[in-house]
Amino acid sequence: MEILNTKVAIIGSGPAGLLLGQLLYKAGIDHIIIEQRSSEYVAARIRAGILEQVSVDLLKQAGVDEHLNQHGLPHHGIEILTAGEKHRIDLSSLTHGKQVTVYGQTEVTKDLMAAREQAKLTTFYESNDVQIHDFYDKPHVTFTQNGQQYQVQCDFIAGCDGYHGVCRASVPQDKIKTFEKVYPFGWLGILADVPPVSDELIYVQSERGFALCSMRSTTRSRYYLQVPLTDKVEDWSDERFWDELKNRLDEQSRENLVTGPSIEKSIAPLRSFVTEPMRFGQLFLAGDAAHIVPPTGAKGLNLAASDIAYLSSALIEFYKENSSKGIDEYSEKCLKRVWKAERFSWWMTHLLHRFETESDFDLKIKQAELAYILGSEAGQTTLAENYVGLPYEIKNMDDLKQAS
Amino acid sequence: MEILNTKVAIIGSGPAGLLLGQLLYKAGIDHIIIEQRSSEYVAARIRAGILEQVSVDLLKQAGVDEHLNQHGLPHHGIEILTAGEKHRIDLSSLTHGKQVTVYGQTEVTKDLMAAREQAKLTTFYESNDVQIHDFYDKPHVTFTQNGQQYQVQCDFIAGCDGYHGVCRASVPQDKIKTFEKVYPFGWLGILADVPPVSDELIYVQSERGFALCSMRSTTRSRYYLQVPLTDKVEDWSDERFWDELKNRLDEQSRENLVTGPSIEKSIAPLRSFVTEPMRFGQLFLAGDAAHIVPPTGAKGLNLAASDIAYLSSALIEFYKENSSKGIDEYSEKCLKRVWKAERFSWWMTHLLHRFETESDFDLKIKQAELAYILGSEAGQTTLAENYVGLPYEIKNMDDLKQAS
Repeated sequence: MEILNTKVAIIGSGPAGLLLGQLLYKAGIDHIIIEQRSSEYVAARIRAGILEQVSVDLLKQAGVDEHLNQHGLPHHGIEILTAGEKHRIDLSSLTHGKQVTVYGQTEVTKDLMAAREQAKLTTFYESNDVQIHDFYDKPHVTFTQNGQQYQVQCDFIAGCDGYHGVCRASVPQDKIKTFEKVYPFGWLGILADVPPVSDELIYVQSERGFALCSMRSTTRSRYYLQVPLTDKVEDWSDERFWDELKNRLDEQSRENLVTGPSIEKSIAPLRSFVTEPMRFGQLFLAGDAAHIVPPTGAKGLNLAASDIAYLSSALIEFYKENSSKGIDEYSEKCLKRVWKAERFSWWMTHLLHRFETESDFDLKIKQAELAYILGSEAGQTTLAENYVGLPYEIKNMDDLKQAS
Repeated sequence: MEILNTKVAIIGSGPAGLLLGQLLYKAGIDHIIIEQRSSEYVAARIRAGILEQVSVDLLKQAGVDEHLNQHGLPHHGIEILTAGEKHRIDLSSLTHGKQVTVYGQTEVTKDLMAAREQAKLTTFYESNDVQIHDFYDKPHVTFTQNGQQYQVQCDFIAGCDGYHGVCRASVPQDKIKTFEKVYPFGWLGILADVPPVSDELIYVQSERGFALCSMRSTTRSRYYLQVPLTDKVEDWSDERFWDELKNRLDEQSRENLVTGPSIEKSIAPLRSFVTEPMRFGQLFLAGDAAHIVPPTGAKGLNLAASDIAYLSSALIEFYKENSSKGIDEYSEKCLKRVWKAERFSWWMTHLLHRFETESDFDLKIKQAELAYILGSEAGQTTLAENYVGLPYEIKNMDDLKQAS
């Protein structure tokens, strides 16, 4: 068995793990990333595509914003289509100039992997039997790679290994509480190399169910349809997808829609999930390992980023200032923001989707809520300020900036 | 049988019917009110106590605001108590100076009855067998009083006879659609001649359930507790009521609370209910006859007032300008405002009450929603602007003012 020593062992090389690695590297804090999958698999995962301003700022601090600056699309508004009419939410004017940036999670991952490669940082891809040990006392991680056994001795373990990962599963049952809501439908998504139907995202509330017109660039579109969980991808030819999308759109969008062959097509279930707390001794959970949101609010990747903002700042404070304040506050601070994002994501999902169980009264209330929100500046602002992202509560964000 | 002729036959002499009568009288439009109950019964009913600014304005137009001006308490804010902490919603600063007025429905009714008596307008109290007829063609109303049979021939019937009244029940089933939600708890309310615990209303969200500290004057308090629907008033001695109220309050309020013997005590169920449409030929429904809200948003009386604002303005337009525009738009305009108030009342109820069926996730989401609302100016504004009352959409409100 080969013994390795580091300060922080990061489990998982998705955006959360990679971003944490990059921020620790910038601060001169030694770390290792251990990942079950291959680097190709990690780089190819297609996920979210909307970055909050605070997420963009964090990538800038990590020094991985060059490609983002060139290719990210700043968006100042979104459209909500309901009862056949589009209503624009002017995100920027409602939030004193804030915006979101359309930039695929795939691109974020690639940029972080490239930076990591350039800095020659240690990543163990295709690790098997990853296990975390003794994280209430002397944390260490064991795994095998190409038949070689490894043990990583560390001060801290960062569990960035997603919903199905080993880190949360390793926490004793009596130390953890989970909260969950499963939705009775899924999102059928396709990616196609066609120009988007509109410059801005269109969130569609219709009698036939929710739809979302999104994009990855000016030439690559991402569309989603609410579908029953019993549907299979094979049930949905490209033609059927485009026809159904048209059925949920307004006339103008229907006319503007450019269709084409899908280059990816999949059905994802929707889930709300939160773990409390997010710290267990020297183990920290971050990103999907700790919480899942339905994608309606575009919060998944951004919540992972905010966890990492808190965690990197806490670790830097620990090593640079010999203070455990940030570490001690990590779970509470994260969860405060997490629950607000969970609330917003649940609300957007609830408001825009068709639920088979809802009564006529429930439906009317939802229509009244949409009508109120769209007709009130305060109502629009509640949507906008959550959509662009609530502010971080990091007192030493400046320290983080100086350190990087 | 005695035959009477009038322009508008108003069924029901609650605040809606009385206010309509007063506004029609001011505009010189002949009407009669027919009421099942005695005048003493009507005058003694204890109900809501918060008037929106638009409701106050309407009472002023009706010329019945003298006592209201003297004794109504203008309120510029409310308190929300959650997790043991009070948070003030500054209604006025959030809504460009709007306010609400604490003034009991009992007082509104008394003022309107006094004005009616002074003007010597016709009211048939203690009417039996009230029936409405032929309202899609030649409307008329029949009833008996003291053994005498009456028939009222009229142009229009205004159904202001409440949820259990005869007017809505007379509409053919295929012409009407109703929407309903019943809540799994009630409000136990007491009235006591003790000074209120606070100058402003306190809405209490607690693990033990909702409570409301309200008032009718500086010397008369009105308190409510969320209780199971299975509870009976006899189960609740005054002592038990005050003890439980204290359990739901913060320490400071607990100390300030002045208790005393109740002068009224009752349990009311909570209901959301809407009728569509609100016009059927020459029959108009208004107030509780058309819709019920749970009392949490203080909207019941105010919605009745806004129906009457629309209806009186429509009838004045009909008789003074020979235009049926207001009449034709009555149902749609009312329902737009009704559904927004229904939405707000449902939302306040949902947010502040404990539901036995809610999961841990649901509870957390509610806490996050409260935390967001209380921590965001936009969030507070959505609450405030609904609480003080959304504006009317009456084009000829000036005509109404001139007419009166």
